[in-house]
Amino acid sequence: MEYIKGSITAPVGFRANGIHCGIRKNKTKRDLALIVSDTICTAACVYTKNLVKGAPITVTQQNVADGYAKAIICNSGNANTCNENGMEIARGMCNLAAKELNINPADVIVASTGVIGQKLSLDPIASHMKELCDGLSKENGIHCTEAIMTTDTRVKEVAVSFKINGKTCKMGGIAKGSGMIHPDMATMLAFITTDVNISKELLQKALSEDVKDTFNMISIDGDTSTNDMVSVLANGQAKNSEIKEKNKEYEIFKKALNAVTSYLSRMIVKDGEGATKLIECKVINGKTKDICKTVAKSVISSSLVKAAMFGADANWGRILCAIGYSGADVDIGKIDVSFSNDKETTVKVCEKGFGVQFSEQLAKTILSYEEITVLINLNSGDAQATAYGCDLTYDYVKINGDYRT
Amino acid sequence: MEYIKGSITAPVGFRANGIHCGIRKNKTKRDLALIVSDTICTAACVYTKNLVKGAPITVTQQNVADGYAKAIICNSGNANTCNENGMEIARGMCNLAAKELNINPADVIVASTGVIGQKLSLDPIASHMKELCDGLSKENGIHCTEAIMTTDTRVKEVAVSFKINGKTCKMGGIAKGSGMIHPDMATMLAFITTDVNISKELLQKALSEDVKDTFNMISIDGDTSTNDMVSVLANGQAKNSEIKEKNKEYEIFKKALNAVTSYLSRMIVKDGEGATKLIECKVINGKTKDICKTVAKSVISSSLVKAAMFGADANWGRILCAIGYSGADVDIGKIDVSFSNDKETTVKVCEKGFGVQFSEQLAKTILSYEEITVLINLNSGDAQATAYGCDLTYDYVKINGDYRT
Repeated sequence: MEYIKGSITAPVGFRANGIHCGIRKNKTKRDLALIVSDTICTAACVYTKNLVKGAPITVTQQNVADGYAKAIICNSGNANTCNENGMEIARGMCNLAAKELNINPADVIVASTGVIGQKLSLDPIASHMKELCDGLSKENGIHCTEAIMTTDTRVKEVAVSFKINGKTCKMGGIAKGSGMIHPDMATMLAFITTDVNISKELLQKALSEDVKDTFNMISIDGDTSTNDMVSVLANGQAKNSEIKEKNKEYEIFKKALNAVTSYLSRMIVKDGEGATKLIECKVINGKTKDICKTVAKSVISSSLVKAAMFGADANWGRILCAIGYSGADVDIGKIDVSFSNDKETTVKVCEKGFGVQFSEQLAKTILSYEEITVLINLNSGDAQATAYGCDLTYDYVKINGDYRT
Repeated sequence: MEYIKGSITAPVGFRANGIHCGIRKNKTKRDLALIVSDTICTAACVYTKNLVKGAPITVTQQNVADGYAKAIICNSGNANTCNENGMEIARGMCNLAAKELNINPADVIVASTGVIGQKLSLDPIASHMKELCDGLSKENGIHCTEAIMTTDTRVKEVAVSFKINGKTCKMGGIAKGSGMIHPDMATMLAFITTDVNISKELLQKALSEDVKDTFNMISIDGDTSTNDMVSVLANGQAKNSEIKEKNKEYEIFKKALNAVTSYLSRMIVKDGEGATKLIECKVINGKTKDICKTVAKSVISSSLVKAAMFGADANWGRILCAIGYSGADVDIGKIDVSFSNDKETTVKVCEKGFGVQFSEQLAKTILSYEEITVLINLNSGDAQATAYGCDLTYDYVKINGDYRT
């Protein structure tokens, strides 16, 4: 498997586009995105577990209930959530796209991202649908990526190439997400396309399993969004024989999917609102994987740990504190904690639950890097898990102090 | 019942003092506190549920196991937590105080607050114990309050006077806490004294019940500390006949206790690290009290809600979002949300789960006050609960970016 250029239009038979239609006031920002496959795809989705769900989530759930889809339409600048006419608008978006593309509205996945509780008008979408569809191409994939961004400062896209049954297959993905990121089951928006031929059942299974270790292991601010969704479309145009069981080919597919989702997950936290650093918390030698996950997520979610990382302050007591209140069943007296910026430079700050002598200067240097690893050794078993987060900065407060106005 | 001047030395028979002994580098900051009763007291405590517990917590648990105590010693600047010799140091503090006061070391409550994982030396405490005890007086109660502060910017103290069996009784309390505040069961440090005559069993019962609605309903940053403790000493010098059952007198006592704890709870969030605003989230008409509590705590803990309050931005969608991921069993379609700064000025922003037209100008004005109420009507029953939090500001990040250095 290798990383290749491009994103959702890298696989055979997919085109995309993104334009500014007028939902966002800033005319330089694209706000309407479309991804289309030439042929029908098996489709899998995972969704937010927030009780407050955006109308597009509900409409998408209905549309992919049969396991098939052909297009994804998404707007930014308005979440179409907590609006009385939300369902009508979400269905309207599907209808407008389907009409212009001459496909069945029930084969359209719809998503919205932006402010909650402000009415979304169909007018700008209707008046720009022809322009959006006319511009569908391989090259315009990047415009699609841009059009789903909100407070994101970087585009998040990736593509990989791999072989199944001797056939070259491709998979591409894009994602948005920078705040309100603390996924539970699914998360933010990520759209993934592939030309692999795979049954709808196994596609869903692969996605549902994968997100547990990728998107569900990241946190920016502890807030689980109302509109989180990850969708995968697989159109089969790589012409491998259909993957229908958990065989060797399924494992290759899962590996490719994981390459795409891990990459996008890391991109999301790295671009967390106001973030200057990516924090990886790796928990090893735990009794169970769930214990390791709980510990890792608690540490990367702690405001105090996040602020200390921003200040490059080796305040490891806050890490112990976050482990202690995580609810995980751990023996504090066995825990070791180290910081590292790569495999070369590591500093151990805590052993068996107690502080050890360490060079503050070395710790400060390590914590000044853009990617930091907090290694927690529970010394109680052989399970492990990794969670990804970012630091808490002045800019997070600034961005969220007046997001709407 | 009426509020009176003073704090922990307001009740008959209590003296206190606070000095700088050298644990903190800044010589203008007091760092060693002592509260003493002339006579033995019934004592009640509640503690943090964090698995990482400061050594002083463990020593205090042992010392008050019999339900009695006579003095409280507390240092700031070092939490004496995650130190290999922590127990020895905590016991040493009790011994030093007991020796100078000529009392039993097992009648001393010990607490420490400050940085986790740095060794605490007994030397400065030993060399200043005589000075500390010599200065014990009614007037020096304020020095005691100051000596337990860390990043706190204001002293937090209160006293009330009330009658039981025709006898005038008094109760006073002090607290510290500004960061790492998200209590679970007990919380931060609060010391309460009273001259009421009450059995140790009922004293503990009253305290354990009370904290559920007061200290346990506040949050500053979602981090549950390792050293949280609330202690009450009751020396009986008001000479009311001992409260031994849940009678009318017990209810009066509980009301006084609640007046002290509610006041201190509000003071703590108001002085939250970097905070400019107190946010009260009142949830009414819920199916159960637990549901109301879960909703209220989720809202005041949301980083996005807190940042919006800092920016006086009526971004109510974030409130719905926080309700949705709280885990509470609520019907989103029934929820109304309003903002108010007092009884006069209220603006409804959400009805039955959907946005309503409102004046952005009015909302901005309301949210610019120093005390804001978020009223959430669940329209599903008659239970209610209130939680207290603060906004998330640049200064929170600043304070926690380099707390140690």
